[in-house]
Amino acid sequence: MTPADTPFAHHLTATDGAARAGVLHTAHGTVDTPVFMPVGTAGTVKAMTADAVRATGARLILGNTYHLMLRPGAERVARLGGLHRLMDWPGPILTDSGGFQVMSLAQLRKLDADGVTFQSHLDGSKHRLTPERSVEIQHMLDATITMVLDECTPFPATEDQAASSMHLSMRWASRSKQEFVPRPGYALFGIVQGSVYPALREQSARALTEIGFDGYAVGGLAIGEGQDTTFSVLDATLPFLPEDRPRYLMGVGTPDDIIGAVQRGIDMFDCVIPTRAGRTARAYTSQGVFNLRNARFADDARPLDPACACPACTRHVRAYLHHLFRAEEMLAPMLLTWHNITYYQDLMRGLRAAIIGRRLAEHAACVRAGWAAGDTP
Amino acid sequence: MTPADTPFAHHLTATDGAARAGVLHTAHGTVDTPVFMPVGTAGTVKAMTADAVRATGARLILGNTYHLMLRPGAERVARLGGLHRLMDWPGPILTDSGGFQVMSLAQLRKLDADGVTFQSHLDGSKHRLTPERSVEIQHMLDATITMVLDECTPFPATEDQAASSMHLSMRWASRSKQEFVPRPGYALFGIVQGSVYPALREQSARALTEIGFDGYAVGGLAIGEGQDTTFSVLDATLPFLPEDRPRYLMGVGTPDDIIGAVQRGIDMFDCVIPTRAGRTARAYTSQGVFNLRNARFADDARPLDPACACPACTRHVRAYLHHLFRAEEMLAPMLLTWHNITYYQDLMRGLRAAIIGRRLAEHAACVRAGWAAGDTP
Repeated sequence: MTPADTPFAHHLTATDGAARAGVLHTAHGTVDTPVFMPVGTAGTVKAMTADAVRATGARLILGNTYHLMLRPGAERVARLGGLHRLMDWPGPILTDSGGFQVMSLAQLRKLDADGVTFQSHLDGSKHRLTPERSVEIQHMLDATITMVLDECTPFPATEDQAASSMHLSMRWASRSKQEFVPRPGYALFGIVQGSVYPALREQSARALTEIGFDGYAVGGLAIGEGQDTTFSVLDATLPFLPEDRPRYLMGVGTPDDIIGAVQRGIDMFDCVIPTRAGRTARAYTSQGVFNLRNARFADDARPLDPACACPACTRHVRAYLHHLFRAEEMLAPMLLTWHNITYYQDLMRGLRAAIIGRRLAEHAACVRAGWAAGDTP
Repeated sequence: MTPADTPFAHHLTATDGAARAGVLHTAHGTVDTPVFMPVGTAGTVKAMTADAVRATGARLILGNTYHLMLRPGAERVARLGGLHRLMDWPGPILTDSGGFQVMSLAQLRKLDADGVTFQSHLDGSKHRLTPERSVEIQHMLDATITMVLDECTPFPATEDQAASSMHLSMRWASRSKQEFVPRPGYALFGIVQGSVYPALREQSARALTEIGFDGYAVGGLAIGEGQDTTFSVLDATLPFLPEDRPRYLMGVGTPDDIIGAVQRGIDMFDCVIPTRAGRTARAYTSQGVFNLRNARFADDARPLDPACACPACTRHVRAYLHHLFRAEEMLAPMLLTWHNITYYQDLMRGLRAAIIGRRLAEHAACVRAGWAAGDTP
């Protein structure tokens, strides 16, 4: 079979407790799981060339439907050959449905049973997103993995609010499934909602499984409920999802969040933390989190992270990175984003190896001990 | 001889009329001339990793003494192992003397016979630059090529003003030579001044040759006098400089300026044009200059420059670059700076090959015809 004929599938290669290691097969290549997807918001992982993203070991990236539908526009992306061609990313791309950004960025949003009408945050132009239109847009973008349009239930929500929001998302999930055009190696993922209520989460997971998707995401988390609650919702949700399909925790998170979620059986993650932190001088390292603008780095001739093989760590010293941030040079976010994404990819490589070696708990303890020890001799 | 023992030298390999092709031998490697040096102002070629700069074929870069002495500070750069180590640029680096930026950027400048006192444009702190201090700073930076401190005579200037300014620069050149510590493969360059007055230029060139330098720059040009005047000053100056030493035209220029100056016998150039234009959407190409923000590029599926091998041209289409600039994504200046520097390096490669082939005039005509033809079918 050529890659283009490969059916979309997630093959588990090892488990350690609830944690899973596997390989995702897609039309655009294979991806080892658990996997972290760097966020390529508007057709670029901010401050990174596609080659640099590849050099970190990232194999699957995320694009934002909301941003891309407004600029450059889905029809234009399709005319230009799709997002893979445009970005120089022949590997797999997952796109979100646009719903989350409509609710967080757009103006004058009006949600109804059929979809959502909103004004662009860029120019005030009026747009409408329905389950069908979101799937159509993602098809035009040539997304390897399409996400259903859902309502990300705000936190906090009463159980009644969460239930009616979840039921709306389930009806939209069904419509998305109808609209999606199956192609070999392409996938459509459903999204579990239900806020912090275990019964609603179970109901949502069962409803989606009944419809049948290529993978299942857990949505509506990491929006202020706290890590303990995030983890207890995962514990209440994952047993009701089919074991042979990938599980994606949307918008999560810190390295510590990711370790805990992998231990509970999550296979896929995305988050803006490593890229955003790369632009604000926050370095994620094996020795914890540093702010490189801090004066203590002005004469620090050590590598940023002695355990990291990225260019920021192997070619430069901390004092140089500090200087670049102080001088507001573009190379500062370029190098630190490169480092932070590499750190996240290293974290995932370590977790995968530990699951395969059935020593995930010990490995997680070692990683956390490194953060706690910090960088002082 | 190891590279560290190589004496600094410029060996001519070919000439075509007044134009010269050669090889510059330095403590940090060899450089083919005529050469264009990308500007690495504050310890970074803006928007470029050192690897990306190398990938364009650039072998010699420029650093700004004024910026580096203020931040991170010359003593700090020395403690951290010098500019090569800090920037990950083991190749040769030329630093300017700081004088030009003191006059264009600093506040409350006070010039006297001994040097110049000024306040930093960053924080108002008071600093003093003398010929001796400038050479000392450049030594601490570990500059391969050190430039003497001079006064860049403003344009326009009367002949009396130009003469007294030039004589000050000649006295400073002599003091710089006294202060400079000769090291194998390192060089000190003098700078010819004299504004637009041929007699003063000749006098300055003779005075510098008398002192004796490893190379000779022509300063005080490309500051508003116009290309015809720039070229006539070169014609009035270069015959009085020793043929066996490299000749550097400071701060020049457009591709057209460079072709004309190479035809007159200049070996070295630096200019912020390709890097600055890379941040303002101006693309220098074999088909002329484009502004990538222009709406005509929104659906343009052609490569930016079909004659260019850089990542912007071989991996992406114009519509993508247009989108990145419209969306104000950092990847836009990153890719376009990469392209513009590559274009300048391609230009120099073409000029060198043409000189060696003794067909410079025909080659220059072809390059200019390409610009004139533009990109319309």
